[in-house]
Amino acid sequence: MHADQPQPRSAYRAFSLLPTRWMDNDIYGHVNNVNYYSFFDTAIAHYLMREGGLNPWKSEVIGFCVESSCRFRKAVQFPDSITAGIRVKKIGRSSVQYEIGLFRNDDEETSADGYFVHVFVERKSEKSKPLPEPIRLALMNLLMPAD
Amino acid sequence: MHADQPQPRSAYRAFSLLPTRWMDNDIYGHVNNVNYYSFFDTAIAHYLMREGGLNPWKSEVIGFCVESSCRFRKAVQFPDSITAGIRVKKIGRSSVQYEIGLFRNDDEETSADGYFVHVFVERKSEKSKPLPEPIRLALMNLLMPAD
Amino acid sequence: MHADQPQPRSAYRAFSLLPTRWMDNDIYGHVNNVNYYSFFDTAIAHYLMREGGLNPWKSEVIGFCVESSCRFRKAVQFPDSITAGIRVKKIGRSSVQYEIGLFRNDDEETSADGYFVHVFVERKSEKSKPLPEPIRLALMNLLMPAD
Amino acid sequence: MHADQPQPRSAYRAFSLLPTRWMDNDIYGHVNNVNYYSFFDTAIAHYLMREGGLNPWKSEVIGFCVESSCRFRKAVQFPDSITAGIRVKKIGRSSVQYEIGLFRNDDEETSADGYFVHVFVERKSEKSKPLPEPIRLALMNLLMPAD
Repeated sequence: MHADQPQPRSAYRAFSLLPTRWMDNDIYGHVNNVNYYSFFDTAIAHYLMREGGLNPWKSEVIGFCVESSCRFRKAVQFPDSITAGIRVKKIGRSSVQYEIGLFRNDDEETSADGYFVHVFVERKSEKSKPLPEPIRLALMNLLMPAD
Repeated sequence: MHADQPQPRSAYRAFSLLPTRWMDNDIYGHVNNVNYYSFFDTAIAHYLMREGGLNPWKSEVIGFCVESSCRFRKAVQFPDSITAGIRVKKIGRSSVQYEIGLFRNDDEETSADGYFVHVFVERKSEKSKPLPEPIRLALMNLLMPAD
Repeated sequence: MHADQPQPRSAYRAFSLLPTRWMDNDIYGHVNNVNYYSFFDTAIAHYLMREGGLNPWKSEVIGFCVESSCRFRKAVQFPDSITAGIRVKKIGRSSVQYEIGLFRNDDEETSADGYFVHVFVERKSEKSKPLPEPIRLALMNLLMPAD
Repeated sequence: MHADQPQPRSAYRAFSLLPTRWMDNDIYGHVNNVNYYSFFDTAIAHYLMREGGLNPWKSEVIGFCVESSCRFRKAVQFPDSITAGIRVKKIGRSSVQYEIGLFRNDDEETSADGYFVHVFVERKSEKSKPLPEPIRLALMNLLMPAD
């Protein structure tokens, strides 16, 4: 599922700037692997809220993460700043698979990249639901031509 | 790479008890997906330190995460307690692939499971190194008969 | 507001066991100061849910933190386990001040101690409300004789 | 020790921009109290590294937090962005007391403010040491005229 090579910025469609925090660094002096997944879900949530109308406090249909993965290629360390790029690989009836690339400072290639799968569910019953239309439209803008 | 089905406790060889924390719960009232990866690397570090003699403050050879992944099957929420089971899938010259299962309270099947790959490197040069012998021996105890 | 000296276990009334996690350690090899506050609010939430009937998903009246503080006396490091002790200093109409001590492994004196103030509010309006009776009763059990 | 009132931006001398992350929000839909302390120590570390020459990977003399405190005045929630302002209240031989204010988006008054005390120690012995001269000079620039 993972790309063999680091990815360029042109492989992504929407971007978020995510500065690192002091406590992201672990005992080895690098951003701990766990925090990369926070960059992933922050970038995705930014996009869904800004472009898809998701309201995490009130929306009846919300996204649950059902699978994620990251390949770590090059260390990042506070006070580096991360630019997270996202694209959409596949849109299903009630699910979407994102691919995310993390760029350190001005780097042109990903320091880490991976994927993240959302299933949309009704908040109360937690049963899967079709993607709300504004979200589907927003996600279609993240499909890459080659896909 | 992921199992199709939840895994039983008998599929793992070493276990750590990892209570959840209040702030692990996110706005949807479940443990956020990011924290699962902290359960993964805590369980692995516990084992390497306890059984393999890893000293994160001083060892010349340390493990860097190069890839990880999780499939989320069932929600967990504070104040649930997690039991993390680990096993080893493959041991290479300088790398090891772990598989981890997370069990909610007394559940017999995983709420989430995934994998995590360590490459061992020299702390200063960050160049890959063969697994230190005490670590290799400890990891061999986590291989499953079926493997 | 802080005690001059480390506190003994006998200075607290209810206890939670809180193992550290790998990523709690920061670049200096100690549990980062930020995480101590997670031990504080986890210990308090445990108690309110277990003894006071707080249901964070549904209760109409919930607690917001309005002030907290910690004095750090001695370093703690993963894989240490923390025992958090709590007591109540003062109960008001809609607020409560807790004091918390964190004990490293089997230590008899606090490695860190501090306080935490909750104001109880109606979930929707976020206006302050009197402490719900079951919570008030549970908190009274945490008052120390000397107080 | 805490100000009675929210503080204005003019009460601080150096600023860092710190976007919130999805997982900062807790079950009540606000940034959890714990994360505010990460804003505190990130803002301070930024300044010490940028202006005082602190190198967390190598410096012989490093800062340990011995006390911190925060008063929470108004909720903040992802995707708000925080501007952290810092000033210095007191410089001792081997310690410094910072005061920090957190501003939500374009707000003119603090949503939260507090203090943080560093003691500088020799990395290996963990014995207190005089403030390194470049750090002392950088910190003097954060003293407020009124002090």
